[in-house]
This record gives sequence, structure tokens and C-alpha cells, in this order.
Amino acid sequence: MEFVKDLISIRDLEKKHIDLILKKSSQMEQALKTGKELNSLKGKVVATLFFEPSTRTRLSFQSAAMRLGAKVLSFEDVGASSIVKGETFSDTIRMVDGYSDLIVVRHSKEGSARYAAQLAEHPVINGGDGGNQHPTQTLLDLYTIKRAKRKIEGLNVTLLGDLKHARTMRSLLYGLAMYGASIELVAPKGLEMNREVIKEVKEKFNANVTEKSTIQLSNTDVLYLCRIQKERFSDQYEAEKVQKEFRITGETIKGAKEDMIILHPLPKVDEVAPEVDRSKHAYYYEQARMGIPVRMAIMDAMVV
Amino acid sequence: MEFVKDLISIRDLEKKHIDLILKKSSQMEQALKTGKELNSLKGKVVATLFFEPSTRTRLSFQSAAMRLGAKVLSFEDVGASSIVKGETFSDTIRMVDGYSDLIVVRHSKEGSARYAAQLAEHPVINGGDGGNQHPTQTLLDLYTIKRAKRKIEGLNVTLLGDLKHARTMRSLLYGLAMYGASIELVAPKGLEMNREVIKEVKEKFNANVTEKSTIQLSNTDVLYLCRIQKERFSDQYEAEKVQKEFRITGETIKGAKEDMIILHPLPKVDEVAPEVDRSKHAYYYEQARMGIPVRMAIMDAMVV
Amino acid sequence: MEFVKDLISIRDLEKKHIDLILKKSSQMEQALKTGKELNSLKGKVVATLFFEPSTRTRLSFQSAAMRLGAKVLSFEDVGASSIVKGETFSDTIRMVDGYSDLIVVRHSKEGSARYAAQLAEHPVINGGDGGNQHPTQTLLDLYTIKRAKRKIEGLNVTLLGDLKHARTMRSLLYGLAMYGASIELVAPKGLEMNREVIKEVKEKFNANVTEKSTIQLSNTDVLYLCRIQKERFSDQYEAEKVQKEFRITGETIKGAKEDMIILHPLPKVDEVAPEVDRSKHAYYYEQARMGIPVRMAIMDAMVV
Repeated sequence: MEFVKDLISIRDLEKKHIDLILKKSSQMEQALKTGKELNSLKGKVVATLFFEPSTRTRLSFQSAAMRLGAKVLSFEDVGASSIVKGETFSDTIRMVDGYSDLIVVRHSKEGSARYAAQLAEHPVINGGDGGNQHPTQTLLDLYTIKRAKRKIEGLNVTLLGDLKHARTMRSLLYGLAMYGASIELVAPKGLEMNREVIKEVKEKFNANVTEKSTIQLSNTDVLYLCRIQKERFSDQYEAEKVQKEFRITGETIKGAKEDMIILHPLPKVDEVAPEVDRSKHAYYYEQARMGIPVRMAIMDAMVV
Repeated sequence: MEFVKDLISIRDLEKKHIDLILKKSSQMEQALKTGKELNSLKGKVVATLFFEPSTRTRLSFQSAAMRLGAKVLSFEDVGASSIVKGETFSDTIRMVDGYSDLIVVRHSKEGSARYAAQLAEHPVINGGDGGNQHPTQTLLDLYTIKRAKRKIEGLNVTLLGDLKHARTMRSLLYGLAMYGASIELVAPKGLEMNREVIKEVKEKFNANVTEKSTIQLSNTDVLYLCRIQKERFSDQYEAEKVQKEFRITGETIKGAKEDMIILHPLPKVDEVAPEVDRSKHAYYYEQARMGIPVRMAIMDAMVV
Repeated sequence: MEFVKDLISIRDLEKKHIDLILKKSSQMEQALKTGKELNSLKGKVVATLFFEPSTRTRLSFQSAAMRLGAKVLSFEDVGASSIVKGETFSDTIRMVDGYSDLIVVRHSKEGSARYAAQLAEHPVINGGDGGNQHPTQTLLDLYTIKRAKRKIEGLNVTLLGDLKHARTMRSLLYGLAMYGASIELVAPKGLEMNREVIKEVKEKFNANVTEKSTIQLSNTDVLYLCRIQKERFSDQYEAEKVQKEFRITGETIKGAKEDMIILHPLPKVDEVAPEVDRSKHAYYYEQARMGIPVRMAIMDAMVV
């Protein structure tokens, strides 16, 4: 089956595309486990073009590319230095397009990845563009959930934290709705999920989405957390109060289902208490490891 | 045929050496197009040692090395941090010589690449040393011209811009003269090409070189541009006036030959108007892509 | 024979382990010389995780990994930027553990490499943790000595410089004592070797260790130098006096054995005079090159 030429937003994908990635990811994970050598990107050059540093995402893409036999061109902008002084973004993309077979681009400006895809002849993957999209994160989230729970449809998934600013959450809501999960949104006042997005998934997928402002986990199968940043509040006292209220501790997960799993895109700072880290519910390190097989699956599908 | 051990200056090469690179570059371009896997540097380690950041040149060399099957050691000095605190340049070169099979070195100090070549047992390629030499750029320029025009001899080539400071221009003048092109030099007052260099190529190659201070392109087959930097002028009003005068716009190229091509070493800032970027004359993106096959040809010729 | 899972300190190794590395290093050196392609790490990903910049050590590990067929994930923290903002060291290690098959970690904090090894499932090599340990340096030192002198037992080895702060020296003393060398320690007042370490090697290996404060080289087979840093002195006049006194010049080595070799972990600044650099005694550039075969041997022994 054909995949998309570029992967910029989760909205670029139909269900059949995501199905393909979920299936391929499982094959990739299996191949990694058995040490089977993969060569589908042998002789290819993958460029990771990070205008905004993100070591975790960069290393994850690079490792995935290497596991498929590719070689990797690495650029990461540290601090103020622009890639080539004064050069336009479009000239930089054209240059890298001439040097590689697939481009992963991360940039703080929304829309930059889409623009890069329009310029480049080779496939472009969005590695995160500002507060906008981060589609490979969503795919790895979906894969992690399906892997742990054998299905997505019918699961009770709680998305918790700053749902207004976290780009992960908007894309994930979209993906979960597409697969028929029941979604509960729990956010502090003022940091609720964008109403347009909720409306969109309800209309498009007939999704079951509810909203709350306090945490209650007794029915939750999957708890997905994201950080609440102090900078979002004008009142620092208020910020600390909310952070404390939304911190996941042993107390919070008391009464949760035996097999509830907790996910987090990482990095996390102190939104999870150490006793939760050590509990059987903590699943975010497994999740992070899934970045490799899922990104392998994506690149494998894009480079033919 | 044997090539040189080190490539530091275009003057290290005889015509037969350049002929070899032009021929090999064409083969490399063909191999890239057909996806043929090349392995002449398999098992080899190429070190790109950039004491001065130049992402474009670094990525170009790295991609070329990877396309030949090599692995790449990358060092790029960002900002003030020296490679190893207090270590002498010579000790650093000796170290890297022990770690790799070919060294590409870029350094802001003139003569540094030549010095590195004297110290290293392995081949050294100059990736640019200050205002001095950048021989692989000249080779890719010659290849690009020959590829577009099927020949170099007899072409009317206009070199335009700050011919005093652009290292590209001096080396290119030398290479073009060697191949029998007719060269027109167009520079703002005070930024003219070094007289010694003109004298040299006239004597050595009996070259046809003329100088002008205004742009007239009706006979030009190849227009080669380079940037005019504000910093070169003490009077900023004068700087802007000259930059404007030497900017290539739709107006400038009116009356030019149908098949005139415009080259530029890139990065460019605003010395070319957008309508020229979109015109059939713009050939600098093609030129940039030639960096890969030409650098492949060079490394292939140097590592036996 | 089995090697250790992690290499954090030279004290993790028994003599049979070091014997294995010395033997393997010689095979690796031979393979490098004959250009034999090695593949024991083919399909593997080695991560070099440098929280503290050390270009020499980083490139050496990377080149060694590449020579065995591995691909390399590179992270080097330049300046203030943490690997992932606010993320704990343990989360970073867990992440990289999920992306690679072997981790080389360098960190300014003592004990960090040991901690990383406890967290990671994959093998961890200490690439230097603060003033504490740098075991691969010690192994390459031992290999270099054995290679030059055909043996270690019974050699007269002089360790000279700031023996208090140089981590290299403490580990090397341990390794030399294990192999039965006679060791002379020469240090400025106040910068002597830790008494506990001397006591330890005397008791454990019945080692012959003597201490002096002036240089006398007539019996020395191997002179091992390290830097004396100005910052260690409160009195700058005193610092300069001591640096001058401990500088190795043509005068210092007059009367030394014909075949005495001088080693230095590099980088060196001006602790060695140019005439010594050019003398037959200078062996530190050879020593630096041994970093490749020895680190190849270590990684080859650790990844099965």
C-alpha cells in the first residue's frame, strides 16, 4: 500500500495509513528483538535538520534510521547561530534536499515543516513545528497504547495536564477519536483543550469526549500526562497550587484499575512522584523506547 | 591515473587532474541518478574538521563521503570553544590523522590547510581556509559550467561582485583561464580583482580577461555572482548604493542570451531578486547539488 | 572468555580481563594495518554521550566503533544547554539505553558513570567522570607500554606531574602495580599522589613504589607526564616556578636511557619543550593512536 509522500500532521493520514504504521511498527519491534538486520534504507542518507534543539527526538530518529541501514547527516542549531548566516529557510531546505534522501525537520515556527515539504523533492517528516504538530509522537503513542492493551477502541483514556498548549494532546485526541476510544479531558481552568478541536473530532468521528477539572481515575485504562508549565500563569502562587493539584502521586492512583497504564511524552520534571515512577502503572519508559520501531516503520514506509 | 595526495589549492592541480575530476564527477552523478550503490570508501573513516562553522560545506562533504560508503567523524567548532583547550593545531591534526583515513579541514586562518597536509599522513582536503583557497568549490563550479554548456573553452563568463575578497572568484578565474574561457570581471570600485592574479593567468594561460565597472550581459554565457558585504565599506550610504547597483533583477537580465545561466556559491542573501530566482537563468540550486558528485569524485580519487 | 558487563573503573577488571584487552588490542592494531574489514559491531548503534566536551576522547571512541562496523549516535553538550531541559540524568540514560546497544558516557560528576551502568540494560563505558576514573585511558597506556617494551613487569616507570589531581595517574599506578612494574612518583610539594592509593597497591600487589620531589631519569624506562595546572596554586609566582621546574626539556632528558619513552595522555600545552617533541623519546603521538585499537578491543569484548 502507498503511504503519504510527506508526514507533516496526523491529519495527513487516513486510518489505513495509521493501520499500516501500527502493523509495521510491530514487525520492526520484533526484528529489533531478534537482532534481525534490516536494510531497507541501506545506501540512503537521512538528514535530521533541527533548527530547535531536541536531543531526544533527534537521537530517536537517528537511531531508527541507522537501524534500517541508513547513514545520517546531523544538524542541530545550538543557541543563536543560524544554519547559514542570513540564508533563507527555503535555500537551506533546497540545499539539504540535494544532500539527502529523506529530511526530518524541526523548527519553532508553525507551518515550517509544511513549507519545507513543498520545497523538497524528497520526503519530509515533521519532527515538531512549534506548538503545532508532532505526528510521529502521536503515532508512537497510539502504537504504545495498542501494544499494551491489544486495542484502542472502547478504551477509557484520560488526557491530563495543560491541554491548551501541549501539541501532543491535540494530535493524540484526534488519533484516539479516530480509533473509537472514549476520551476524558482533565485540565486546570484556563488550560482546557481548544473547543474547535473537540467539536471537530465529535463531528468527524462521532467521538465520546468528556471534560472535567478534577482527577478521578477509577475507570481509566490509559492515563496520558503532560507538563503544566509555570510560565503559563501570571500568578506564581496559582501556578504552584495547580502544579501540586495535578501532580500524580501514590495517593492519586489509589483506586485506579490494576492494569491502568500511565503515559508521558517525556521529558518530565516533577509532575510524577517517585513512588509512581516505581509502580507497575508507569509505562512511559516503554513508551519512549517505542520511538525507535515506530519511527523505523514510518521511514520504511516513506522511502521506497 | 594518479591524483594529488592533498588538495589544498586549485594551483596544486594540472589540467589532467581536473579533467579526471570532471570525468569522474559525471560518472558519480550518473550513479546517484540510477541509485547504484558505490563502495570505494567502504570501511574508511572520513573526518570533517571544521574550526569555523560552515554547515553547507560540512554537510556536503559528509553526504558525499557517505554516498561512497564511508563513515564520518564530525567536528564543528561552535563559538569560542576550542577543539581541545589550549592544544596546538598541530597536535589536533596529528590526533585526527590517527583516527581517520581522510581529513577535510576548514579553518579561518590562511595556510592552515597546507600546514595540516604537511603534518598528516592521510590525505587532506582544504574545505576553505580564510580568504585564501576553497578548491572543491572551484571544481564544482567548473563541473557545473561544463555540464550546462558541454564545454568551457570559448565561453563568455562574467564574474560579478566583490572580486577583491571572494576567495571563490580568484580560484575560479584561474580555473576558467586554464580551460580557455573569455572572462569579464565586473566589480565595484575598490573591490576589483587582485592585479597579480590577472597578470598571472594572462601570462600562464594566455587568458582573455577584461575588466568593467558596470553590468552588461548581452554576450554573457555564464554569469557568476558573489556577495558584496556591507562591512567592506566605511560609508554605509555608499555600501547600500553599490549593493543596489549590483543586485541582479529582472531588469538586469533583460537582453541577456536565452541560455545564459546564473551561478552563485551560496548562501545568498538579497543580491538576487525573487523574479530571477524563478527565472530559467537561475542555475545555483543545480550548482549546489553538484557539490555531492564532485566531492565524491575528489574523495574517490584521493583514497586508494 | 567473558569480559565485564560495564567498564567504569580499572578496579572492575581482574588481570585476566586486562590480558584479554592487551591481546585483542594487538589483533585490532594488526587488522587496522592490513586494512582487514572488521564487522563485530555491524548493525549495532553506539551512543557517545558527552555531558562534558572532550573532542579527543569522543572522536577516538567514535572512530573505534566505526572501525568495527557500528553506527554512532553522537551527543556532546556544548556550554550550558542541558541534554533535555530539566530532565533528570536517569531519564536521559534510560532514553539513550533504548536507542543504542552500547553507551559511552562522560560526565563531570564523580560516580555518574557507575550510576548510568546501574540504570542501563546495555553495556556502559566510562569515558571519564570528573576527577575520578578514566579506565580506557589506563588500558591504552598499559597497551602502549607493553607494545613499546614487550613487557610491563620489572620496568622502571616514572610518573611525573600533579599526581594529586590527575585521574589518569591514580588508575595507571594501579594498573602498573598489578603488572609488577617498579614505580617512581615525582610530584611537586602539595601535589603528591594520594597516600591511600599508594598503600592500597603496596598491600594488594606488593608493589615497589618510591616517592621523590626532584627529577632524576637515569634508570627510567618509561616517563609518564601529566600537566600541572596553575589553578592548583594560590600563589601564581609559586605556580610558575613549579611549572618551570617540572617542564621536560632537552636538559632534563640528558643522561636518560637511549630507549626511554615519554608518554602523555594529551592534550599537552607547554609542559614539554619542542626539542623533546622532536626527540626519539617522544612517544605520545604513538600513544594517542593506540586509542583506536584499544577502544576497539574493549567494545569488541563488551558487545556480544
